[in-house]
Amino acid sequence: MTVVETIEVLSPVLQGSSSSFLSTGTIIALTGFFALLCACIVIGHLLEENLWANESIISLVLGLCSGLVVLLVTKFENSHILTFSEDLFFLYLLPPIIFNAGFQVKKKQFFKNFTTIFLFGVFGTMISFCIISLGAYFLFKRVGVANLNIQDYLAIGAILSATDSVCTLQVLSQDETPLLYSIVFGEGVVNDATSIVLFNAVQTLNFSDIDILTALKLLGTFLYLFFTSTALGIAAGLISAFIIKTLYFGRHSTDREVALMMLMAYLSYMLAELFNLSGILTIFFCGIVMSHYTWHNVTESSRITTKHAFATISFIAETFLFLYVGMDALDIEKWKESKASAGTSLAVSSTLLALVLVGRAAFVFPIANITNLMKKRENTKIEFRQQFIIWWAGLMRGAVTIALSYNQFASSDDTSMQDSALMITCTIIVVLFSTVVFGSITKPLIGAVLLRHAKPTISDATDLPSQEDLNILFLESGDSSEQTNNPPTRKNSLRLLISNPTYTVHYWWRKFDDKCMRPVFGGRGFVPFVPSSPTGARDETS
Amino acid sequence: MTVVETIEVLSPVLQGSSSSFLSTGTIIALTGFFALLCACIVIGHLLEENLWANESIISLVLGLCSGLVVLLVTKFENSHILTFSEDLFFLYLLPPIIFNAGFQVKKKQFFKNFTTIFLFGVFGTMISFCIISLGAYFLFKRVGVANLNIQDYLAIGAILSATDSVCTLQVLSQDETPLLYSIVFGEGVVNDATSIVLFNAVQTLNFSDIDILTALKLLGTFLYLFFTSTALGIAAGLISAFIIKTLYFGRHSTDREVALMMLMAYLSYMLAELFNLSGILTIFFCGIVMSHYTWHNVTESSRITTKHAFATISFIAETFLFLYVGMDALDIEKWKESKASAGTSLAVSSTLLALVLVGRAAFVFPIANITNLMKKRENTKIEFRQQFIIWWAGLMRGAVTIALSYNQFASSDDTSMQDSALMITCTIIVVLFSTVVFGSITKPLIGAVLLRHAKPTISDATDLPSQEDLNILFLESGDSSEQTNNPPTRKNSLRLLISNPTYTVHYWWRKFDDKCMRPVFGGRGFVPFVPSSPTGARDETS
Repeated sequence: MTVVETIEVLSPVLQGSSSSFLSTGTIIALTGFFALLCACIVIGHLLEENLWANESIISLVLGLCSGLVVLLVTKFENSHILTFSEDLFFLYLLPPIIFNAGFQVKKKQFFKNFTTIFLFGVFGTMISFCIISLGAYFLFKRVGVANLNIQDYLAIGAILSATDSVCTLQVLSQDETPLLYSIVFGEGVVNDATSIVLFNAVQTLNFSDIDILTALKLLGTFLYLFFTSTALGIAAGLISAFIIKTLYFGRHSTDREVALMMLMAYLSYMLAELFNLSGILTIFFCGIVMSHYTWHNVTESSRITTKHAFATISFIAETFLFLYVGMDALDIEKWKESKASAGTSLAVSSTLLALVLVGRAAFVFPIANITNLMKKRENTKIEFRQQFIIWWAGLMRGAVTIALSYNQFASSDDTSMQDSALMITCTIIVVLFSTVVFGSITKPLIGAVLLRHAKPTISDATDLPSQEDLNILFLESGDSSEQTNNPPTRKNSLRLLISNPTYTVHYWWRKFDDKCMRPVFGGRGFVPFVPSSPTGARDETS
Repeated sequence: MTVVETIEVLSPVLQGSSSSFLSTGTIIALTGFFALLCACIVIGHLLEENLWANESIISLVLGLCSGLVVLLVTKFENSHILTFSEDLFFLYLLPPIIFNAGFQVKKKQFFKNFTTIFLFGVFGTMISFCIISLGAYFLFKRVGVANLNIQDYLAIGAILSATDSVCTLQVLSQDETPLLYSIVFGEGVVNDATSIVLFNAVQTLNFSDIDILTALKLLGTFLYLFFTSTALGIAAGLISAFIIKTLYFGRHSTDREVALMMLMAYLSYMLAELFNLSGILTIFFCGIVMSHYTWHNVTESSRITTKHAFATISFIAETFLFLYVGMDALDIEKWKESKASAGTSLAVSSTLLALVLVGRAAFVFPIANITNLMKKRENTKIEFRQQFIIWWAGLMRGAVTIALSYNQFASSDDTSMQDSALMITCTIIVVLFSTVVFGSITKPLIGAVLLRHAKPTISDATDLPSQEDLNILFLESGDSSEQTNNPPTRKNSLRLLISNPTYTVHYWWRKFDDKCMRPVFGGRGFVPFVPSSPTGARDETS
């Protein structure tokens, strides 16, 4: 269930006269893990300025090293020192990371580029899914993998479409390149959700008789999961805002507010899983709604605390995850099980890596050019240089890939046993290679591509407003709407809707938000009626 | 291992076509638990003004109710719906609670009353331990319990000496009655540590041949555990202060600082357990040192975040704990196992309750009067009314009692099986009865005893300084020492040492702290050399 159990095989090494309540194995495992986490943080901080390293790579490498040490200490006997547990991953590590992503997202940027992010994250992932599935189906037979069925191939497509853009986000600056950052960040989250929902859909469907309807069913399941999960997340966020606004009106308690926000977020995730929806989408939207409403209804202390506590928990979960993946990679039993020659493993891994590269290129450049065609203003278009970075940002594969791979292949039946084990080991190779090799090139590469050619109007132009931009900025800024003396007329807004659909939608949303939502759920500008409580005027997350 | 596993028997109830990664049982259990936690917080907030209720009781009663519902749903088939897991308790719930206690303790008050707290917490607990052990030894045979050995009786003494003063602390005000609050609070923490260390010592020793040395060995083991654990905690706190002061000098990162503090604290607990020391004492002193040094070395945001995040986590852990105890109380298998008649259970439980009452009275009143004799100033003496409240505050028994009881009696051999099961059920009865009955009387009782007779000079006089107090205040206040133009001469300080040992120790500690410790480890007044960083002058926890 947890990491604790699976490492208990270590206990005989140091089993002494214990006056403690806990088994020695558990304690050694936890002590080691927490010491490693501390080491990761300290080393990560020391190497912050280093060109080739980042925190993901450091955790991964430290995990690999300690896995090696454990292997040597147990004389290669304990292969299952640390097994990747999907439960630990999906119950405790993924939810805080995704919730924090939703909570900290710059909502204005996110919704401004929503169309682009949605196209990349949903349609892009689907294109990548199709290409990797088809590619694996046609190429694997040539390297001797024959026992996989159609569902396995579709699962491989979903598994390897889940990107991990942490490395790139550590390099990109939210202030210098807001457009690029928001697209890479947004795509990363939507992509995770899409691939998990796709994976769920693939597992639910029956592929015994494939007809023309299967693809449609897959799409239908996908859309159903997508919208219901989003709705549940929004509902949970709104309920938390309502409870805190109503109950705590007049007498705030920071600890209770923070506790309620944490628990409600986690509850929304568990409810989604209970209803067989996508918890990841639910908790992401719950985070967005909480930062838009709930966060404004609490005291100043609660705001600072939630902002940093959620970020810290997410940071620890991420570091834990990479350490864990690194340690797990050396699980020899898995390597023995696959029985494949090094050549086959290498061939399959290379094929997968190539498919990942092609699958991503196949949607990044077309979609970027299509969105460029829809945009009239030159300075919001996505340059080729930026397209290249978006492509690169999604090449790394991470923990979601490993978790999904275990889920699909760890409990296969006997006939396809060897090929399933091979799939798991090859997934791990792809994850390790892409994170360590691609990851360490990321910083110098992006530096070379972006910074050498840094002209403000080219590299990222959304911060230099034209006259039209300024008009729009007045419309979309809720704070300055009181100062604008010329609200848009019907004709004006119609013109805007045609030329700038996103902005206009945002304007009407603003109006709806101010009229209907905020009186009920609070939100920015909500001032609790407590003399000692600070005002709600400051807004740091939107 | 965790609550998740033990509740998996519930899964058949709703096992449908799951497209999820987690087993339905796990999800139902977690969803239910988090919903209950949210309910506890909301109901606790609504009933805050209620005279008879407090959060512990609400959680306990909600836990009992939901345990009943689960029993009914499973038609009394599943007795092990929620088993009290010591691992969950000692690994995840107790450490944050104790760490937060150390972190939030008002250090000045705590060390000012250190002698009193130490006498109550250590000697008092030992007296209570002796009385309960002896009482159980002589009385149990009369009600038909005969299969327990000498170690069991000593364990019962340690188990039932662990108090739970949460109820009383929720009623007492830290500002109105600082002396009383700090004694009850301090005794509560030291008492937990003492009883766990005593319990450890009892389990380590060999009682097969009892001679005069056994008692001395017990004392020796106790003192060894006490001092090494404290030293480890202080070392861990100082290392964290040093790392953050040295490494983060110049470029702070709130998330990393908070993460490092959390992880180092937890690491100190695990290290103590690894070396067979008392993790609870270690993490308590780690918390004190961290709030004295580390907390001052970090940014303003980190300070607010740590302060509230630790309090929130501790709050959630406490609520979780009471819910858990409530749900566990209805585990029928345990009740069946004991095979004792209702009469025997009642007799044993009543005996234990009576021993608890007597054991506590036997040390509170004598020790209070002894400390009164040592004090010269009338207004720092502990009045009889206050002694009564101190006595009452420690009558409740909580989760530590249950956890220790499971540890001792859950894995007994066959001969004493029935009596062991009886001990567990009787411990649960004592915990439930004392928490619900004593707990609900606490608020009105303390109100009646304290508030009706509230004269400022009597109820708590430490806030009204006499001339002598003022002198001492000047000495002990590090901030105002620059303004004092007459530092104590050697003769002066000798006179003070005799009349007020604690204050003078505090003065010399202050000097040592300023000269040797702060230059290395930072602490109050440490100003990071970052222009944008706030100064470290504010001190909220000491």
